[in-house]
Amino acid sequence: MEYTHGGDVYRNRVKMDFSANIGPFGMPESVREAAIRGVLASTAYPDSEAEELRNGIAGKEGVLPEQIVCGNGAAEVIYHLAAALKPKHALLLAPTFSEYEHALRTVGCQCRYYFLREKNGFRIMPDILDQITEVIDLVLICNPNNPTGVICPKDLYFPLMETCRLRNCVLAVDECFQDFLLEEDRCSFLDMWKSAEERKRGRLFVLKAFTKMYGIPGLRMGYGISTDRELVRKMKKERQAWNVSVPAQYAGLAALKEEEFAKTTRNYVAGERRRMKQELKKLGFQVFDSRANYIFFKNPYRAELYEQCLKKEILIRKCENYLGLDASFYRIAVKTREENEELLRCLESIVRREEIWHQARSREERK
Amino acid sequence: MEYTHGGDVYRNRVKMDFSANIGPFGMPESVREAAIRGVLASTAYPDSEAEELRNGIAGKEGVLPEQIVCGNGAAEVIYHLAAALKPKHALLLAPTFSEYEHALRTVGCQCRYYFLREKNGFRIMPDILDQITEVIDLVLICNPNNPTGVICPKDLYFPLMETCRLRNCVLAVDECFQDFLLEEDRCSFLDMWKSAEERKRGRLFVLKAFTKMYGIPGLRMGYGISTDRELVRKMKKERQAWNVSVPAQYAGLAALKEEEFAKTTRNYVAGERRRMKQELKKLGFQVFDSRANYIFFKNPYRAELYEQCLKKEILIRKCENYLGLDASFYRIAVKTREENEELLRCLESIVRREEIWHQARSREERK
Repeated sequence: MEYTHGGDVYRNRVKMDFSANIGPFGMPESVREAAIRGVLASTAYPDSEAEELRNGIAGKEGVLPEQIVCGNGAAEVIYHLAAALKPKHALLLAPTFSEYEHALRTVGCQCRYYFLREKNGFRIMPDILDQITEVIDLVLICNPNNPTGVICPKDLYFPLMETCRLRNCVLAVDECFQDFLLEEDRCSFLDMWKSAEERKRGRLFVLKAFTKMYGIPGLRMGYGISTDRELVRKMKKERQAWNVSVPAQYAGLAALKEEEFAKTTRNYVAGERRRMKQELKKLGFQVFDSRANYIFFKNPYRAELYEQCLKKEILIRKCENYLGLDASFYRIAVKTREENEELLRCLESIVRREEIWHQARSREERK
Repeated sequence: MEYTHGGDVYRNRVKMDFSANIGPFGMPESVREAAIRGVLASTAYPDSEAEELRNGIAGKEGVLPEQIVCGNGAAEVIYHLAAALKPKHALLLAPTFSEYEHALRTVGCQCRYYFLREKNGFRIMPDILDQITEVIDLVLICNPNNPTGVICPKDLYFPLMETCRLRNCVLAVDECFQDFLLEEDRCSFLDMWKSAEERKRGRLFVLKAFTKMYGIPGLRMGYGISTDRELVRKMKKERQAWNVSVPAQYAGLAALKEEEFAKTTRNYVAGERRRMKQELKKLGFQVFDSRANYIFFKNPYRAELYEQCLKKEILIRKCENYLGLDASFYRIAVKTREENEELLRCLESIVRREEIWHQARSREERK
């Protein structure tokens, strides 16, 4: 089976992995300790109901525990959502995280796409509403989107919710990377839903994860929140009894208390993101408006950055297997200053070689 | 949601849990250490292919890595099997582990049952073959069965395989508790399949787990082996990219080397099982022929053992929610000598009270 995502540090020789969108500081000490306590407690089955964890999340998110469904990573939650809804037609963004389509296909759903345009900076435009036709049962958007990092314009939140409500379709929003957005950009569809008039609220599903901010992708812990409790009940029926491991449940509980860590990470990432974007632009790359902990850019050179970086044991995400993209697009995580510097140096050396080659070639041609 | 399995130590005050069928010695030191190393390595995504682990399992089981599918516990593997096969009609034992039916229902499968009879000691009899009709797509048996611990008679292995082959249906065997069987009882359907003539081999799927023998139910690590590689490929398509956590993969790899631990556990459990069965019989319980690390028995008394034991903070498995059983059946795990003694003392005191009560009542009646 081909590895279709980033993060394959298992079949590549990798010193630094920029291909997986994980926070720069690894996991907080408290989360690591909790996960280790979880290992020691793993001689018992996990709590099938993840009661304590759901209570904790409910408190943080301002929802009821009955609105929360926990998963073996956010990715599993997507599959359970697909299994519970069994939509016939779904509208997805393109490009976007490929697990949505994969999950929807397992239940025979036909996916339609709202193609994000390069000329619009891969931003969702109001014409998305036209594609939410009668036939669509589910609209699934990723906000900020992966791999672009571009956020959904706030003036589209209500129109999206309202159109979905009128079409009687579920609006699912993957907000796994919201944690990394600065205050001015951060806005959950859930908050918008809460602030809407009651009669104007539709069926909303929001996906979240501890994975990225708290650096625990290997532990697998994600969750979904729905305004539709019946949907949550149905989702629970689609899964095995013990889907979230004890270490993951313990780690999740500890992560809930790490607001300071999140804030520090967020600010650090914002600084590095800004700096890296500038540097990438200086190197001649076309950089798009990511607000998340990763940067999406287009390579105008001939060099294949993925292969070139891998020679230096640096793994980046080539984006050619995303629908709507080609081999000229790449995504890199924002990591620590030191690591980012090394990646930039590596990219610079690639670009320099190419310029030299170009210059040499033009000299040749002029002869 | 109601808790339909054993092991709910989260909503009960429990000092000793006999309701979950976990080995008596917890997890081996090497497995614990590996899982902790797994936590530290969880800042990366798990290997989506679980390549190293599948290679290790393949070596142990004498199969190819391509025949192995790993899961977030054996329970998840059942759901993926159901999703990949999408059988219309399946034949299950009754009573048996309820997740099979639950999993099959998620894909709209109708379950039929081969009812194990008390008068036959809950043993599978040759008449099971009559129920494998043209309409059946999948036969799923648990060997040794849960909750009874009774093993499938060896002279039924070939007829079962052959009948399934002729009916073109998949034979799935849950062998999660085989590890606890003594040499003379232990026999995988996989070995039988290998020893059959090639043209007489059907489609076999065998389910296994590290959970029980190596005391890691909280980590979630199970796997399936199939003689049908296309089925394995299909199953992988039904799941998210990263379903087995890093700690689980590390722990599984370490568990593969713990053959001494398994042997010691097996022998210890055999001794305690024999002793407990005798003691339970002495107390007047009807004990069935479990060969696994749990004992299944019938209570002839009025006392509700579950509630009475729980008063002493001992959790046992009441079996009334198994199809084909009623409130007089119970299942208890075989734990350490000390714990088993305490459970026996607790049961003895319940029985004694009842006898005294009966005697008093008969004295009353005689008056």
